[in-house]
Amino acid sequence: MTQSEKALQLHEQWNGKINTTSKCHITSREDLAMAYTPGVAEPCKVIAENREAAYRYTIKSNTVAIVSDGSAVLGLGNIGAEAALPVMEGKAVLFKEFGGVNAFPICLDTQDTEEIIQTVTHIAPAFGGINLEDISAPRCFEIETRLKEILDIPVFHDDQHGTAIVVLSGIINALKVVGKTKEECRVVINGAGSAGIAISKLLLNYGFKHLILCDKSGILNKQSENLNWMQKEMMDVTNLEEREGTLADAFVGADIFVGVSAPGIVSEEMVASMNPDGILFAMANPVPEIMPDLAKKAGAKVVGTGRSDFPNQVNNVIAFPGIFKGALEGRANQITEEMKLAAALAIASLVPEAELNENNIMPEAFDSRVADAVSAAVKAHIHH
Amino acid sequence: MTQSEKALQLHEQWNGKINTTSKCHITSREDLAMAYTPGVAEPCKVIAENREAAYRYTIKSNTVAIVSDGSAVLGLGNIGAEAALPVMEGKAVLFKEFGGVNAFPICLDTQDTEEIIQTVTHIAPAFGGINLEDISAPRCFEIETRLKEILDIPVFHDDQHGTAIVVLSGIINALKVVGKTKEECRVVINGAGSAGIAISKLLLNYGFKHLILCDKSGILNKQSENLNWMQKEMMDVTNLEEREGTLADAFVGADIFVGVSAPGIVSEEMVASMNPDGILFAMANPVPEIMPDLAKKAGAKVVGTGRSDFPNQVNNVIAFPGIFKGALEGRANQITEEMKLAAALAIASLVPEAELNENNIMPEAFDSRVADAVSAAVKAHIHH
Repeated sequence: MTQSEKALQLHEQWNGKINTTSKCHITSREDLAMAYTPGVAEPCKVIAENREAAYRYTIKSNTVAIVSDGSAVLGLGNIGAEAALPVMEGKAVLFKEFGGVNAFPICLDTQDTEEIIQTVTHIAPAFGGINLEDISAPRCFEIETRLKEILDIPVFHDDQHGTAIVVLSGIINALKVVGKTKEECRVVINGAGSAGIAISKLLLNYGFKHLILCDKSGILNKQSENLNWMQKEMMDVTNLEEREGTLADAFVGADIFVGVSAPGIVSEEMVASMNPDGILFAMANPVPEIMPDLAKKAGAKVVGTGRSDFPNQVNNVIAFPGIFKGALEGRANQITEEMKLAAALAIASLVPEAELNENNIMPEAFDSRVADAVSAAVKAHIHH
Repeated sequence: MTQSEKALQLHEQWNGKINTTSKCHITSREDLAMAYTPGVAEPCKVIAENREAAYRYTIKSNTVAIVSDGSAVLGLGNIGAEAALPVMEGKAVLFKEFGGVNAFPICLDTQDTEEIIQTVTHIAPAFGGINLEDISAPRCFEIETRLKEILDIPVFHDDQHGTAIVVLSGIINALKVVGKTKEECRVVINGAGSAGIAISKLLLNYGFKHLILCDKSGILNKQSENLNWMQKEMMDVTNLEEREGTLADAFVGADIFVGVSAPGIVSEEMVASMNPDGILFAMANPVPEIMPDLAKKAGAKVVGTGRSDFPNQVNNVIAFPGIFKGALEGRANQITEEMKLAAALAIASLVPEAELNENNIMPEAFDSRVADAVSAAVKAHIHH
């Protein structure tokens, strides 16, 4: 049986990967009177007086909605709400298993920006946070921005910020390995969708100065055609030298490459044209932009991928459970840039200097310290 | 400590009465590859080809949304989404504990009919059924009717139909006790909101012929002022004699009274004016329309209330877990009138003829046979 067949069979056995379970078992009239009527009227009355009390008496304190419209699911594209559900359930599993956070999938049968914003706003009261997932760019940017304005609970598009945080943490450690500074490095990011944009923004916020965004058409600059509004905004802060050309041109003299793009599109020649001690994150999944052995052979010093069967796995699961755990425990109203940077630094710091090397820049996904470290970093940066 | 204080303290300890838990524990890379990427892509692809496969691979097979806008919560009225949450969580607890059904609270921050319909439509893909709860009349009628038209999963407003089913099951057994037939009985229902209307409809569908609806203004008839559209519709099938007058007038010569109204509004004189062997359900909660001992003293033969500390408790928990269990297991597209009648008969039949008496017409809420009997009755009436 192939891995795919086995996964399908397991999904049929599970028949849904999450359960909703009761914390209060009802075996007597007294139990019923406490958890339901008439006892339940008491917390209702208290919350009616003061909405904030919902955090004291309800699931709002520790429950996240995982919201997707199924428009950009894994590498499968726009497969719709029902087909996105196994991924969102999987995400709920990871929230619980890694962060102890309750999460529930909300798969939307609309892909209209305004309808998504309205629907999420309407269902927000029961939730302590909103994790947006697999919503295509550029709609994801507006949806997240608007929801952050409307809601008083954290809204976090994991494809953007989870990815960006984990990439930054890897880069922080890779820089230590190669002995370069963020200020001097030239960074190339290939893929100008949700992940590529968010990685660019976080790297710039962290202090990188030289950053070029590329997509299928090559290097993006102010003259590029067909840029969406977010890509246009990015042209004010990236490619300040207004370079033009292909992805191969972008590679020349680069110190760091981050691919959130397509399988096999990076050649050995491109890698060979980078500055010495190149850092390369080839995160197309399951087939990376270039296989790690080829990248190494071509001269790259540190290579990361999204895969668990190569060193330096860049996996969002290192970030999002701890991010929400911290935000919920600390009652953050939003996930700020400061928290994201703190989370990236916390993740990076889990690899001790003594153990740091080109094949060990990321903590293990299964390292039980990760969620707590990320959570603590987030909580330390909540300002009420 | 009072019961209320104890309930509040327990709610603080629970800090949310439900958890979302994982069916698949993730302790290795292999686990992660099966439940999440890359394995999860397989069920996604199958569902993308055929939406129906969601029932095979996801939580849709066994998960209900408990949807409320907080506009008519218990006896507390319009307390809003957050304050309604403890009730919806309690309902989710009962779904799981009594019916083995996963349920998740969706508390809406809008009370606009169109917005509610749109929001529920948008979040429907992950759910196998929609339980509407504590939505005020007459909006609840339109919301339910429209959602039933739009969605291909069962939509069930428990305040209406759960209540109606349990009342009908009690009346079926009460008629056996007093030896009357449904055709001959004169029925008075006080309260013309969601429960009163639904009880009226189900009793008429069951075969009652003489039924009068009352509200605060007394007997409703075609000349009544300020009727909403649903109440107007009901005037075509109730009070065919076009009677007028007060609630006291309605009581004269009645065989059955059902109160879903307000504490203490039924007097001993009213009960005394009923036909012999009167059946009386006084379901205002926690204080009934008339206390059972007074009703008995005034001549009523069978008295039921919503309370667990008197005989003949009429409690929705006898119905809704089994209704949804059956509908989900049988993949019903909707809960039909036929299923509701079958559920009522199934509940009634759980009290053996030999044990049936004026103080024992309802099965116990904690009778473990109840949900299975209701579920089986529902499933037997699914026509694909």
